[in-house]
This record gives sequence, structure tokens and C-alpha cells, in this order.
Amino acid sequence: MIIVMKPKATQENIEHVVEKLHKYGLEAHLSQGKLVTIIGVIGDKAVLANKNMELLPGVDKLIPVTETYKLVNRKFSDQNTVFKIKDIEIGGGNFTLIAGPCSIESEEQIFSTAKSLSEAGVKILRGGAFKPRTSPYSFQGLGEEGLKLMEGAAKQFNMITVSEVTSVYALDIAEKYLDIIQIGARNMHNYELLKEVGRTHKPIFLKRGLSATIDEWLNAAEYIIRENNSKVILCERGIRTFETSTRNTLDISAVPVVKSKSHLPVFVDPSHASGVKEYIIPLARAAVAADCDGLMVEVHPDPDQALSDGAQSLTPVEFMELIKQIKPIVEIMRRKLR
Amino acid sequence: MIIVMKPKATQENIEHVVEKLHKYGLEAHLSQGKLVTIIGVIGDKAVLANKNMELLPGVDKLIPVTETYKLVNRKFSDQNTVFKIKDIEIGGGNFTLIAGPCSIESEEQIFSTAKSLSEAGVKILRGGAFKPRTSPYSFQGLGEEGLKLMEGAAKQFNMITVSEVTSVYALDIAEKYLDIIQIGARNMHNYELLKEVGRTHKPIFLKRGLSATIDEWLNAAEYIIRENNSKVILCERGIRTFETSTRNTLDISAVPVVKSKSHLPVFVDPSHASGVKEYIIPLARAAVAADCDGLMVEVHPDPDQALSDGAQSLTPVEFMELIKQIKPIVEIMRRKLR
Amino acid sequence: MIIVMKPKATQENIEHVVEKLHKYGLEAHLSQGKLVTIIGVIGDKAVLANKNMELLPGVDKLIPVTETYKLVNRKFSDQNTVFKIKDIEIGGGNFTLIAGPCSIESEEQIFSTAKSLSEAGVKILRGGAFKPRTSPYSFQGLGEEGLKLMEGAAKQFNMITVSEVTSVYALDIAEKYLDIIQIGARNMHNYELLKEVGRTHKPIFLKRGLSATIDEWLNAAEYIIRENNSKVILCERGIRTFETSTRNTLDISAVPVVKSKSHLPVFVDPSHASGVKEYIIPLARAAVAADCDGLMVEVHPDPDQALSDGAQSLTPVEFMELIKQIKPIVEIMRRKLR
Amino acid sequence: MIIVMKPKATQENIEHVVEKLHKYGLEAHLSQGKLVTIIGVIGDKAVLANKNMELLPGVDKLIPVTETYKLVNRKFSDQNTVFKIKDIEIGGGNFTLIAGPCSIESEEQIFSTAKSLSEAGVKILRGGAFKPRTSPYSFQGLGEEGLKLMEGAAKQFNMITVSEVTSVYALDIAEKYLDIIQIGARNMHNYELLKEVGRTHKPIFLKRGLSATIDEWLNAAEYIIRENNSKVILCERGIRTFETSTRNTLDISAVPVVKSKSHLPVFVDPSHASGVKEYIIPLARAAVAADCDGLMVEVHPDPDQALSDGAQSLTPVEFMELIKQIKPIVEIMRRKLR
Repeated sequence: MIIVMKPKATQENIEHVVEKLHKYGLEAHLSQGKLVTIIGVIGDKAVLANKNMELLPGVDKLIPVTETYKLVNRKFSDQNTVFKIKDIEIGGGNFTLIAGPCSIESEEQIFSTAKSLSEAGVKILRGGAFKPRTSPYSFQGLGEEGLKLMEGAAKQFNMITVSEVTSVYALDIAEKYLDIIQIGARNMHNYELLKEVGRTHKPIFLKRGLSATIDEWLNAAEYIIRENNSKVILCERGIRTFETSTRNTLDISAVPVVKSKSHLPVFVDPSHASGVKEYIIPLARAAVAADCDGLMVEVHPDPDQALSDGAQSLTPVEFMELIKQIKPIVEIMRRKLR
Repeated sequence: MIIVMKPKATQENIEHVVEKLHKYGLEAHLSQGKLVTIIGVIGDKAVLANKNMELLPGVDKLIPVTETYKLVNRKFSDQNTVFKIKDIEIGGGNFTLIAGPCSIESEEQIFSTAKSLSEAGVKILRGGAFKPRTSPYSFQGLGEEGLKLMEGAAKQFNMITVSEVTSVYALDIAEKYLDIIQIGARNMHNYELLKEVGRTHKPIFLKRGLSATIDEWLNAAEYIIRENNSKVILCERGIRTFETSTRNTLDISAVPVVKSKSHLPVFVDPSHASGVKEYIIPLARAAVAADCDGLMVEVHPDPDQALSDGAQSLTPVEFMELIKQIKPIVEIMRRKLR
Repeated sequence: MIIVMKPKATQENIEHVVEKLHKYGLEAHLSQGKLVTIIGVIGDKAVLANKNMELLPGVDKLIPVTETYKLVNRKFSDQNTVFKIKDIEIGGGNFTLIAGPCSIESEEQIFSTAKSLSEAGVKILRGGAFKPRTSPYSFQGLGEEGLKLMEGAAKQFNMITVSEVTSVYALDIAEKYLDIIQIGARNMHNYELLKEVGRTHKPIFLKRGLSATIDEWLNAAEYIIRENNSKVILCERGIRTFETSTRNTLDISAVPVVKSKSHLPVFVDPSHASGVKEYIIPLARAAVAADCDGLMVEVHPDPDQALSDGAQSLTPVEFMELIKQIKPIVEIMRRKLR
Repeated sequence: MIIVMKPKATQENIEHVVEKLHKYGLEAHLSQGKLVTIIGVIGDKAVLANKNMELLPGVDKLIPVTETYKLVNRKFSDQNTVFKIKDIEIGGGNFTLIAGPCSIESEEQIFSTAKSLSEAGVKILRGGAFKPRTSPYSFQGLGEEGLKLMEGAAKQFNMITVSEVTSVYALDIAEKYLDIIQIGARNMHNYELLKEVGRTHKPIFLKRGLSATIDEWLNAAEYIIRENNSKVILCERGIRTFETSTRNTLDISAVPVVKSKSHLPVFVDPSHASGVKEYIIPLARAAVAADCDGLMVEVHPDPDQALSDGAQSLTPVEFMELIKQIKPIVEIMRRKLR
């Protein structure tokens, strides 16, 4: 932490700040510049968290030097996080595909999708049961019934499952049926839910918030890991900008940025990022080349009839084309497609 | 709803779309342009919600003509919403002040604040008990204990109370102590929580999400009202942009925009919008002049010692100055300051 | 300037940085923190401008402590800039109205507008002659012919004039006819043009760029003033965000922010900020209450027939209503309406 | 063009709109919906450009159906633009590398860079001579002297050249020395300059504006092509968002979006997009995989000593690594690396 004094700060102001720091058990190193004095704070800056040093007379601003997150921070743990969910390893040299419909709609739909995906080599099935929709008049998902259907499909085709929970109530139900719990973009800032999923023993698939900075996203992961659940997968799914030709703007740089700041695996969701079918395959290729650890893609046996997000869903045939196109790039990145 | 066909759409494509519309009980009006054909859809477009018409061959895009929200829509109900919370009327010709500390910290702090505010004529006391903080290492609030303290302070000084809930668990507790339930910016997209607060009989203070469009915000209000709770107050508190000299960017236009699109009362929170003490009073004046229905302002008896948001909290003396400065503008706007 | 070292920086790395600083005639103050070492740089940091210290081994990042602009910086000159254009004083206790059509279209149009505005007490007439339009197929302005017409109208009604220049060519022409030169949002980053207008003796009306930070905007003003033209008026006109219900998002906070960072006068343009007629008056009131120094408003005698921006132009009658509504607020702000 | 009437529009209002359309030689197709009437406009909507139909009584809004740009629009010309600059073909099955220093600084620097790049197989040399810098106190470029040096280096190593022009004055000089003229992000909205470069016979390298929408960017290209210069290369270089961990946010989706909307070649500049050295190679790989037509990368023989953008410049050795890493992906995309 650095404290920058105002140009007109008096010697008395500076001494007052230094006294305060000493009172809190911290040391102060002064640098008297030509225009302003800056004070380097030595010690655990956490003790300053609620001290409002910026309100002391003569103080211009506080500049944090280190990040607030620790457990997810590469500075504190240089080894990439790699873990297994059943027999599927995430991270490391693996490239993992997660696919399935936006919403679970019927037994036929989810079984048919699971069959196609399983034949294509996909091991993780996604499907929404608790849907956070902008309008209360949109389809809100089948709830527990949906999760049961997906569990059945996954068993039959030897897959594991992931689905979003939007409340503690949904989490209690979901834990029974799912292998991976997803926190969606709209709940990334829902800290109570983050703490709750942190208390489960399930791996967590944490999407980036609609307009969350990367630091806020890593802090959200910190909420989960701090509850002793270290199996967290991050997923970039596009951020909100002024550009309207895509539903969101895929922040492809988030892949290398997160990899440099954290040791957690990072996936990319090109379906939500673009919202437009024809852009999904190019974005999937780009995500692989940026060296992400996997993709989450929306696939529906009959997008025309999908109850949500049909416009951004691939058919099983189109998804086979996606696999075909990313496969050689996955190999170049020295990963194994799972 | 308008369906725009691609320039190369065939007559067959067009007929196929029209057939589909008829199948769903809708009528189609064709306009054959020089370059493209557009199809006006007549009937309740809600039946098209999950029909993915944009995937039909030859279709370029769908353009919605009307909003998805109804109960909050001025087009369906022209009369401004005005309601009473105990004896305090919100909306109409009233201008309402809500003030108090970011977090409830101690009996002394909340009683001292309530006393000052009450003497200044403020009737609604705010104070956070369940705090959604970006970092898990920041102060998370006193919880139920805090609400009890605030209830005591409010009773003694004849005020009513508002506080944020961040989960169904917090809501169950909060209902016992509070007069108004707040949904904060980070939970505006938490639709399960919106439905739950819609099922209470308490008025709801709904802040705009960090980067929610005005349409999404009005849809969030629709979630609440649809559960038969029509006492909703909207609160603009700044949106996320590229500008970093303020914590958020106060979208002052949201006041007239919401007033033209909806009949609900709109407040402004200049404290969170700016994050900088010295900008709060000018923004408060601007908000009054934009014709909002009230303000929510952070006031702390000793901002230096505040456990959260000290940098953007006014002292009681500074808050008196705020009242002094907005008062004549409130009068010009022909409102009564409460 | 502060240099933050990486957690793993060696003693050798640190010494290397210190040596470099000494070599450039600067002093270094080290603060050895628990996790990282920070180095305070003492001396004129301008000498580091092209030294890329962030590339030295072990350096994590550079944090600037002071702004790059000087002449416009309140820290260096605390006195508000007030100046006269002919007999019209800008800044200080004055509140100045600038109004007129988006584009000068015909003699009748500009004379009729000037007449109405003059009767309403407006002293500064605006009108576009060189129009920067998004599409090359839109009306591009009358050029010199337009400026001649406006000059005639201004003379007849005893007004002064302002118009935008979009190139050095336009500037050469414009200087002959105009009292104030405007740099529009699309050219705020056109540094060559800024230097050129800085070399004229005309006051400059500098709009904020479409997505310029306040610091970039003040640097743009610095470009002008550095050429010895200190008569600069800043004008906030909305920034680009994700919100689409208004053409731009009026950053009302920019008024107090600029006033705290700079001594230059600040105007607001509610017409471009909103792009919607019915929001202009509320935003104008808000701008006055935020304590800006004046407004620029689009007024057209017959908006239905306007060749550009008709949808956001007020009629003379509507503009009279705007004046009526802002007048009492101007008085509360202790300014004189000019 | 579609005209949406307000719910309360009268029959008279509708007839008035229809009459106006007829007057302008257009046809009107009415669709009477349950809630609102929409009017499809048949004919060349360009005649409505300055007619402000949205101001007619009862009109709610106008919705454009087709784009304003024509010459760059894929809808009007399906064939990808491919052209030669000397013997270097751009677009089609080619993948083109442009590299060089941010600023031309000295004979030694530009010759040394050209030598390294030439040995690495690069055919197009970049180097800035007229630099648009945020602060007037930053290095502004060597001007004509710099261009002469670059021309010399290019001749010696058999390369062609590209550099940015920031004014008509710079363009007049630059035309003598350069093979390709660059319009930088800060001048993408400088329409006068766009027209001028459109009148030259040089190919134009058009960067996307700091916060330009893709539609505005394509309109900027239209300005150039409309002057009969059809050799335009578009370059995505990151847009402005709230995220601060990168200098800009690379909008990787812009590659497939532009390819679907236009027939022009699209390049990517990962150096400006990220601003951080270590992210450049991952972003370069992603850009290739998204199927762009080439890259522009900043390379400096000694980034520590660079007069601008050192922090985002690769050394020649690092650039060789970039080529090594993108090469196999270029091949997968069935392009030839040039």
C-alpha cells in the first residue's frame, strides 16, 4: 500500500499519517518527491482495510500494490491447479469439452443430445434446469425434474454433468444429481451463494460476471476456495460493451491474463459470448489457440425448437464440425482433447 | 415483432415463415422492400418466445417492437405509483431522504447517526447488516445483531428502516426488523431473490445492477411486481464504464428515461455513484433537478473510523449542508422535502 | 512515480533499477514491504518518459503519482479561468447559453433561429457548417457558405458565433467568420488539429471525445494551451456505454470532477448527450445544478425539416421553456444567466 | 426502414405518416398489431435521411433494416477483396505479417529492425513518424526525416512500408515515401482525413477507433472507398471497456463479424490490443485461429530504449518465437504465411 499526499500537505499532516500507521503496527517509509510526498506502508495492509486513511488531512489517495486475493493468486502458489472429477482430469495437458442444451426440456431431448455428444467423445454434459432469465415471462427451466432427466442420460452414456444453481434452494437439490455445480454470470457477485457452493465438495464452474473485472472474478473464486473447496474452474463468457453486433464481447485476453495472475484452469464459452451461431466455431478456434483448458458449448438436437438460446445453439452435426476444426489446434497447443 | 428476411431469401423461405406464424395463431403482414422483405407479426408475440424464428431459412433477424415488461410499463398504466410506508408517502409530490451508514457497526454508531438524521428531518434510516463485499477478507456486516440495533435506533427516533438482503436466509431474518427491503446492485440479476422479495408484503428498494440496461432493470422490477408486490422503488446508483475518476458513472439520464418508460418512483444514490465525498453534494443537486423522487445518502458519525465506504460517507454536518443545498431545488421542482 | 518490484525480484534487480534512476539524475527511495519492494522516484519523472523502466528485470509495474497535464491542472494554478469573448464573459459567476441548429441549412433558417434566440436573451449562436457524419451519404454541411450566412445572422442580431472545424482546411476558412472555434467529439484525439487551433487567437470550445477519459480530455486541452491559447472551454456531451435508451450517457459527474482537477470552465450539451428531445430539459436542469458554466443546446425553427439531428432539436418555443425551467436553478447556484 | 407508431397513435397520425412517405416517393405497408401499428417503408430509404419522421405526431421510433454502407457491404458484393501491393498479395489465401517499431527513432534502429524482420521473412515494415500521443509532452515522432530513414531501410532489405498519417499535411509528405497509408484509431472518425486518403492511390490500413462500433468502422471504410480507393485493409486493435488488466480489450469476434458483413481483409494488432508483452503471442495465435488475414506487431531491437510503447514491443528474438508459434495455425487455416 502506498499513500500519496497532496501537494499542499503540511509536515504535520505527514507526521499524523505516520503516527496512525505506527499505531496500527505498520511501518512507514517516506519518499519526499519534488511535488508530493509518498508514504510506503510496510506490514500487513489488511489491518488498514477499514481505517479510511484517505480521509486523513493532506492525503490525496491510496494506491494498493498487491492483490486482495491470496488462495487463487499465482504469486502465492505457482503450480497450475489440476484435478479429477471422477476419471476426468481438468487442467494440465488436458483440453476438455463440455456441451449440451441451454435448457433441459424433455427426456427425449436430453437423451438424444447426450447420445450424440457421447459418440463425439464428449464426457461432460451440460443442461440448464434453473434458468435465470431477464424476463419473468420467459421459460424458467424444469428444475429438479430436469436434473433427474439429465442424470439418467449421463448414466446411460457414461458422462458426468454440470448445471447452474441460482439459489441455496436450487443448490440443495442440485447436489444430489450433479457432478459439477455452475455459478452463472448473473450470480458471480452473489457472495452468499459463492460461500454456500464453497461448502460443498463438488467442483465449481464459475462464469465471469456480465461486467466483472478480472480481479473481481478472481475474488469471487477466492470466496469459494476460502471455504475449503479448491476445485474451481473459471469460464470466460463475454463481457458487456458498447458493441451490439455480438450478444457480449468475448474478452479473449482474459485467458492469458488469468493464467498469469492465477493457477486455476480457464474455460471459454463461445456460445454466450457471441450469441450468434455462425461466430461460434471461429471463436472456439481462437479460444483453443489462446491456450484455454476447455470449452463449454451449447448443443441442441433441434435448435429451431429450443426453449431458450436456440439462436446460439449448434446442432450435433455442427458441433462435430467444431471438434474437427479445433482438434488440430488442440494438438498444436500440446493438449489432449477429452 | 418484425421479422427481417435476408436479401437472398426465396419466396419459399418467406412462405415457410408465414406458415409457421399461422401455425402459432399469429398473422403475418408482408412488406416487400427493394432489397429485403419484412414480415410484421400480429398477435401476442409471447407465443414466439421459444420458437427461434431467427433460425428459419432465409431469416436475417427479429426486431422486437414492444417491451417484455408489462406491469411496470407506463404504456399499460399511465398513473404514477405513489404509496405509503407507515405514514411516509413515496412518489407523487414528495421528495424523500434516506440516509445512514454503509454498515451498522455498533449501538453507539447507529444511535448517534439516527439522532443526527432525525434532527435533520430524515425519516428513513439505512444501514447495512448483510454486506456483499468484493473481497472475502473485507468486513461482512453484523447480520441480525445489526438489524436489531438499527430497529432500536429507529424506534427511539421515530424513523423507519431499510437494509439490503443478499439471500433468502437474510430475507427471513430481515423481514422481522425492517420496513423496506433493499436489493443491491450485485443482486439485481438474482431472479430467485427477486421472486422471494416479491412474495413479502414489504416495499422493495431495487438498485440498478452494476451494468444493467434500463430495460433489464425494469424487467427485474417486473419479477417483483408479478409476485403481487407492487411497492417497488427504483434506485440509480451509477453504472460501470471506462471512466475511472469516479467509482461508477452516475447515469443521470436514467431518471427521465425511467419516468417515461415506467410509473414507478426513482431515487438516486450519489454516494455509490461517485465514491468520492466531494462530488456527492453536486450530484445530489443534479439528481433533484432531474426530478427524481428521493435520495439515498451514506452518512457516518465518524467516517475515519467507518468499517466500509468511509471515503464516500458524509458526516452529519456535511449532510446538513447537502440538505441546505438541495432544499431550494426541491422547492423549484414543486416537491415537499420529507 | 513509484516502481513496484515483483515478489521474486532479487537484491541485484533492485540495485539495477536504482542505478538506472541515478544515471537519469533521479533519486530512489526504497520501501521494503513484507511481500514486495517499492521504489519511490524523486525528481522530474518526465525524464523517464521513454525509458521503459517496466522492462527491467524484476520490475512488476510503474504507478504514476502525478498527472501528465500541467497548464490546465488546478494543482498548479488554483484560480478559475474567466475570460471575455467580445463583451461576453465566460466562467466565474456567469451562466452562458449557446444555442442554434445542428447544421446551418439556409439563410431563412439561420436568421429565423438567430432572431428567436436573440429575443430569448441568447448571445452565442451555434450552427454546423463542416459536419462530421458517420455515413458518407449523410448531409455534410454547407461549408464556407454556411459560415457566411451565420455571420450575417449574428451581426444582425448582435450575437457572437461558434462552429466546429474538422480539418486545418476548414479552420483556415472558419477563422475568418467565427468568434469561437469548436473541436467536436470525433476530433478530440486529433492532436494535429488541436495544435493548429492552439495557434489561433480564437477561444476554443473543446468537446469531450466519444469515449475519452477525463484525463485524456484535459490532456487535449493541454495541447491547445501549450500553443499559447489559454481560452479553452470544455464541454461534456455524453460518453459511450452499453446503455442504448439514450444516444450517449451524460457523465454528469464530469462537471465536479473537472472542476476539482482543472481551472477551466465546463459546459454541458444535453442535446447530444441524450439524443432524445423529451430528456433535454431535465438534463439541462441537472447540468445547471451540478454547477456547470453554461449549456450548448440544439434549436431549430422546424425540427421536422432539419437536415441533421432533428430528433434532438428543440423548437424556439421549447427552448423558451428550457430557459424558464433552468432560470431559478441558475439563481440558486448564484450565477447570472447570459 | 420500419416506422413503429405509439400505442396511442390515432388513425389520423398513421395516415399523416403514410402521406408523407407517398410525398417522398415511397410506399407504405401497414401492419396493425394488437398493441401498435408498424409501417414498412418501401423504396430508397436514403430519401428519408433528413426527414426526421420520428418527430411526426404518433411516431414512436424508426428502425433501420439495412446498413448505411454499400460499397464495403458483403450483401452487395460477395467476393472477398484481394489485391496486390507491389508483389505482395493481401487477403485470399495469404497470411501477411507487418512488423516494426512503434516509432522510427534513428537510422541504426530502423535498419537493424528491418534486417531482423527481413531475415524472419517479413515483407512489410511499419514505423511511426507522425505520432498521436495523449500527452503533448511525449515524443511526437521524427516526421519526414523518419519516413526517409524507413524508406532507405525498406529498399535495402526489399520490403514495403506502412506508417500512420495524422493530418493532410502529413499525408502530403507521406505519399512520397510510403507504400501503405495507415489511419490510426484516434483518427478513424476524422472524416476529412478519410476522404483525403481515399483520393490517393495508396492502399489504406484502417484501424478501428478506440470505441467505434463495427458499423461505424465499416462506414469509415465506405468514406475511403467512395473516393474510388478500394484497397482498404481493416485492423482490429482493441476497444475501450471497463477492464484495466489490458490496455484495451481485443474484440476477437470482430474478425468473424467483419468477414460476415464485409468483403474487406481484416488484420489484428495484438500489441496495442493488450499493451503487455507477455500476452501478445497468445493473442496472435488466437487472431490467426479466428481466421484474420494478417497481423501487425510492434518489434523493437531494444525495447528498453524505445521512445514509445516499449512495454508492448517484442524483441526480434521474441518475434521469431511468435512466428514459430503461429506458423502451424496459419497452415491449419489453409493460408500461406508471407
